[in-house]
Amino acid sequence: MILEPSQRELHARRARLLEALHPHAIAAICLFSPLRIVYLTGFAFIPTERPLALILSGEGGTTLFIPRLEKEHAETVADVVRIEVYPEYPGEVHPMIHLRRVLESLGLGEARVAVDSDGYGGGFGYQGPALGELLPDAKIVKVGEVIDRQMSVKSEEEVGMLRESARWGHLAHELLQRYTEAGRMELEISERAAREATAEMLATLGSSYRPFAWISAGAYAGFRGQIGPHSAVPHAMITNARIRSGDVLVTGATAGIAGYHSELERTMVMAPVSKEVERFFSLMARAQETALEAIRPGISCREVDLAVRRFFETRDLMPYWRHHTGHSIGIGLPNHQAPYLDIGDFTEIRPGMVFSIEPGIYVPGLGGFRHSDMVLVTERGIELLTHYRRDLASLTMG
Amino acid sequence: MILEPSQRELHARRARLLEALHPHAIAAICLFSPLRIVYLTGFAFIPTERPLALILSGEGGTTLFIPRLEKEHAETVADVVRIEVYPEYPGEVHPMIHLRRVLESLGLGEARVAVDSDGYGGGFGYQGPALGELLPDAKIVKVGEVIDRQMSVKSEEEVGMLRESARWGHLAHELLQRYTEAGRMELEISERAAREATAEMLATLGSSYRPFAWISAGAYAGFRGQIGPHSAVPHAMITNARIRSGDVLVTGATAGIAGYHSELERTMVMAPVSKEVERFFSLMARAQETALEAIRPGISCREVDLAVRRFFETRDLMPYWRHHTGHSIGIGLPNHQAPYLDIGDFTEIRPGMVFSIEPGIYVPGLGGFRHSDMVLVTERGIELLTHYRRDLASLTMG
Repeated sequence: MILEPSQRELHARRARLLEALHPHAIAAICLFSPLRIVYLTGFAFIPTERPLALILSGEGGTTLFIPRLEKEHAETVADVVRIEVYPEYPGEVHPMIHLRRVLESLGLGEARVAVDSDGYGGGFGYQGPALGELLPDAKIVKVGEVIDRQMSVKSEEEVGMLRESARWGHLAHELLQRYTEAGRMELEISERAAREATAEMLATLGSSYRPFAWISAGAYAGFRGQIGPHSAVPHAMITNARIRSGDVLVTGATAGIAGYHSELERTMVMAPVSKEVERFFSLMARAQETALEAIRPGISCREVDLAVRRFFETRDLMPYWRHHTGHSIGIGLPNHQAPYLDIGDFTEIRPGMVFSIEPGIYVPGLGGFRHSDMVLVTERGIELLTHYRRDLASLTMG
Repeated sequence: MILEPSQRELHARRARLLEALHPHAIAAICLFSPLRIVYLTGFAFIPTERPLALILSGEGGTTLFIPRLEKEHAETVADVVRIEVYPEYPGEVHPMIHLRRVLESLGLGEARVAVDSDGYGGGFGYQGPALGELLPDAKIVKVGEVIDRQMSVKSEEEVGMLRESARWGHLAHELLQRYTEAGRMELEISERAAREATAEMLATLGSSYRPFAWISAGAYAGFRGQIGPHSAVPHAMITNARIRSGDVLVTGATAGIAGYHSELERTMVMAPVSKEVERFFSLMARAQETALEAIRPGISCREVDLAVRRFFETRDLMPYWRHHTGHSIGIGLPNHQAPYLDIGDFTEIRPGMVFSIEPGIYVPGLGGFRHSDMVLVTERGIELLTHYRRDLASLTMG
């Protein structure tokens, strides 16, 4: 059972990134994205107006640049060599001016510096200069894609955390299905399922469990507003609707393990099941099989989506098409990462990649039909990481 | 009881923004930030790899640019005149190329266009060009600060939603305190408090309640890892620690109302209360009073923080200082907005602004001491929007 990345793993991630960046002939890399900082240091934090940066240079020089309030926190959990602190944002001296001093003290004032974004992306009302403006004599090189490429191939530990997440997502979904009844309301059912699954999860994992989250933790299962005709909206938002007989429901379940979030989604149906619902359910199941049969190492992401598109086209389903076949999964929530199983994504599928497989059929006025399963690409093909029952009979209630 | 912004309110927000931008002599504004789009249209969505943009031009031209999967969703809830759809990201043609066509069709190809960021900020592995690259003959003007300034002054409806949020945050906190006992674990207590408060909230608000959230909804109260000596870490993350006698605890409570999140935080203490804990608790309470006495319309944010800094300095508390006095509150979570009650923020405090007031004292090895209350700035002074008891006796347990 893996609940957090090991120090060895974090070290290997950083070494691998520096190696991948070798052809760019950079002196250092400076990253601002919170998720990328978590990925490379194990330091999870609440993103706010206060910028953080991670500076990696050769020979293991790992510097974390943080606001004062994160100092003791980072000292405890961040796997870095050096911590540099600025007082506050906006503060009397802007944090980016402090960052410039740190970069200059590392001899990077006129160097080639790789970045994921040219300055802190922010939000929360943050305003500040680009790194390029601060260091006019440095050469700023954007390498976000290089990091994303590395993050798309999962290590054994990462797959272990996604498996652990899937285990608790499965339990939450089991409870969600058990409590789903006509007459009950969306949040009543999902809150109960989440709470009971989380209680079981906490009792099992004990005090060693740190979700890398700051407001909610544990396992989750719910409908995200996809209830009845409204299930035809692929990315609905939570409502507090009442479930009725004949409703098509689209579910989702996950659990947070050190920031990793698995994906499990099912189409469930409240009896009685109409012929039309049965037909679209069956087409959806075949569309998903089409994707599961297509995906394998060595082909491109595009090819998987193309196979699904062909399935849609030959059955006149394009009026009900709404989105690509799936996305890469790892750290973060929403758990979407590059590459995408999309007609426009030419990335080669490689062993260690983890994808959601979730072609959906959305019929206005009737409902949405989507199962999502998480698969690990192996040397020879794929391994399913979600194991929830998928046939209509097992997913019909009431 | 206000649970969502009215159409009139959304219209007024857009009109006000266009008016504020008048001196910039722009032809249109194109916004990419999800929160700003929610603020101006009422359209809340799950941010992913797929860019969305809102284009506002004079005479009420409001165009929402969205991926195909959001079409029916936006048609139902977005208060806009026109919806333009692109198939998918990355897709066969990049979404930003579609956006260029939309902007050109609006006659903006060579115009002055205001933006909040020069392209989609992304995350989720998104990669794409800046707007300036797409429209080389247009003049791109960054105006994020103008929008943030407007968002910092709340309308009556916004204050109403923050009040409603505070009501349910209060209940969740009440339950959190009731269930806090030595021997219990962090998540056990907070999950129970959140669930019961949410159940009560849902029973009261009924099916008209739409949290504008996509995974968890309702009311929340918890410790966010600030338990015992670990409470000295201002932004700890959730752990699953066990509460012990003598522990200092720092709490937080909120509830989501159409994306608005109030703020209530309290320092609670498990008996027996040491002299040292009593002393720091009392100093923290006086630091907060100092801020509450200082804040009023017409002065700058800086002055409030300066008053608190002076309090810290004259009592030799600077070794325990970690962060500024507070932040503006509105739509979003984490609920941090500009301006900041910070020594470096010269913004004038104006009626309608809502702030957290939360100077904290953090004593390594002992614990953290922080109450956070939410205040509305009025014409004459302030009104507290949180009303939870604040004295040590009322916050001592066990």
